[in-house]
Amino acid sequence: MSAEKTAAILVIGDELLTGRTRDVNMHHLAGWLNARGVALREARFVGDDHDAIVSALNALRPRYDYVFTSGGIGPTHDDITAEAVAAAFGVPCVEHPEAIRLIEAWYGARGEDVTPARRRMARAPQGAELIPNPVSGAPGIRIGNVFVMAGVPRIFQGMLAAVERSIEGGARIHARAVTALRLPESRIADALREIQAQAEGVIIGSYPIEGDFKGVTIVARSADEAAAEKAAAAVARTMREMGFEPEMADHRQKSDDKAR
Amino acid sequence: MSAEKTAAILVIGDELLTGRTRDVNMHHLAGWLNARGVALREARFVGDDHDAIVSALNALRPRYDYVFTSGGIGPTHDDITAEAVAAAFGVPCVEHPEAIRLIEAWYGARGEDVTPARRRMARAPQGAELIPNPVSGAPGIRIGNVFVMAGVPRIFQGMLAAVERSIEGGARIHARAVTALRLPESRIADALREIQAQAEGVIIGSYPIEGDFKGVTIVARSADEAAAEKAAAAVARTMREMGFEPEMADHRQKSDDKAR
Repeated sequence: MSAEKTAAILVIGDELLTGRTRDVNMHHLAGWLNARGVALREARFVGDDHDAIVSALNALRPRYDYVFTSGGIGPTHDDITAEAVAAAFGVPCVEHPEAIRLIEAWYGARGEDVTPARRRMARAPQGAELIPNPVSGAPGIRIGNVFVMAGVPRIFQGMLAAVERSIEGGARIHARAVTALRLPESRIADALREIQAQAEGVIIGSYPIEGDFKGVTIVARSADEAAAEKAAAAVARTMREMGFEPEMADHRQKSDDKAR
Repeated sequence: MSAEKTAAILVIGDELLTGRTRDVNMHHLAGWLNARGVALREARFVGDDHDAIVSALNALRPRYDYVFTSGGIGPTHDDITAEAVAAAFGVPCVEHPEAIRLIEAWYGARGEDVTPARRRMARAPQGAELIPNPVSGAPGIRIGNVFVMAGVPRIFQGMLAAVERSIEGGARIHARAVTALRLPESRIADALREIQAQAEGVIIGSYPIEGDFKGVTIVARSADEAAAEKAAAAVARTMREMGFEPEMADHRQKSDDKAR
């Protein structure tokens, strides 16, 4: 069992900060990394702004094992991520010979020319490797511990699958969830604090269902599966003593816009 | 017309970084602020970690006019936002007399005791004001330019409505969107760069529909409505010259998980 691996994501794009578009990449990455024993520790969203991208990237990349970026690698004037990543690393942004070959092949097969705008998608920080794009022509970029990927969700997900081999996972985190409907979170909170105090190596999270009084889900997470199991059992026992019926789940992955 | 007002959001909670829960508050806030002439410039997500909250908050609050936080103000042991905000401001975290009155009234009306856990929800940085919670009992907190709000979306939205009077908007930003289906973003990219170069005071964003080739939406944003209009018209003209039919929209707000 190796030491914990950590990651961050930097999501780039004005459209996410104006409310035009809703990000789905952070949530996808969170679940993907979690399943591989990598802890997503931080996410940042900035606009299409050179200095903001450079400074966020330079804050994140020394702090985490892996940094993923999403957005800003397309053909238009507002796609400035490659230049910003190069600036963050202090290297020139150049045309990558393999990238231009891929882009020529992609558009050639569709009877389209490689216009100056399309050619820009071949630009990468000097020394960067390419990330294959299984969906559309232009590749992503890897430099150091930074993975520069597309913002379009289908392409982001394709590139993520393509870099799987490069990600070294840490200890797999085991999670057990216990839900009791109609139990106010605030009523079990004191007992929960004691269970947490006894449960070494376990992180217990508490998530009210639409606020207090409609119920609560308690999640116990640990690299030690038996410890997570034991803490969840203690939670379930407490719920039962309070007159509420616990529902337990092996809590691998759950996406739900409503419950938090 | 006043100078531009800016904001950031700090979203707090392990559940968002493990992929258990998907945030909706950032997107809601983005649209809400945009409609009020406040530019959301940055978002950060951190876990239930004291030091991470303190350092993110102290990075954001001198940089923007308003900072909103979401999450970590409930009754359980993992709700540590009030303490962290107090630490960020270098003041003690104390029981707020008005908050405890509100909480006693709320639980009293439901025949429930104010347990130690529930009492914790009355804690606030010394000198903070309260933000009314129109949904459940425990209030949010305002200190300086920081608005500390609940993570549960319905409560977050209720608190946001409650602070509306405190938010001074800047110049209203006008947006015009033009969509052409089947027009590859990369084909219009060179023309777009020229339109952007001519359009002073306008920011033109380009958003491919599911990647290149399926179509593209171009958004022109400006405090000068006529300038946004003019840039959008130039985009529409270009699309028509390329043989694609533009659809124009007064692009106030559009939420779409798929398109970006």
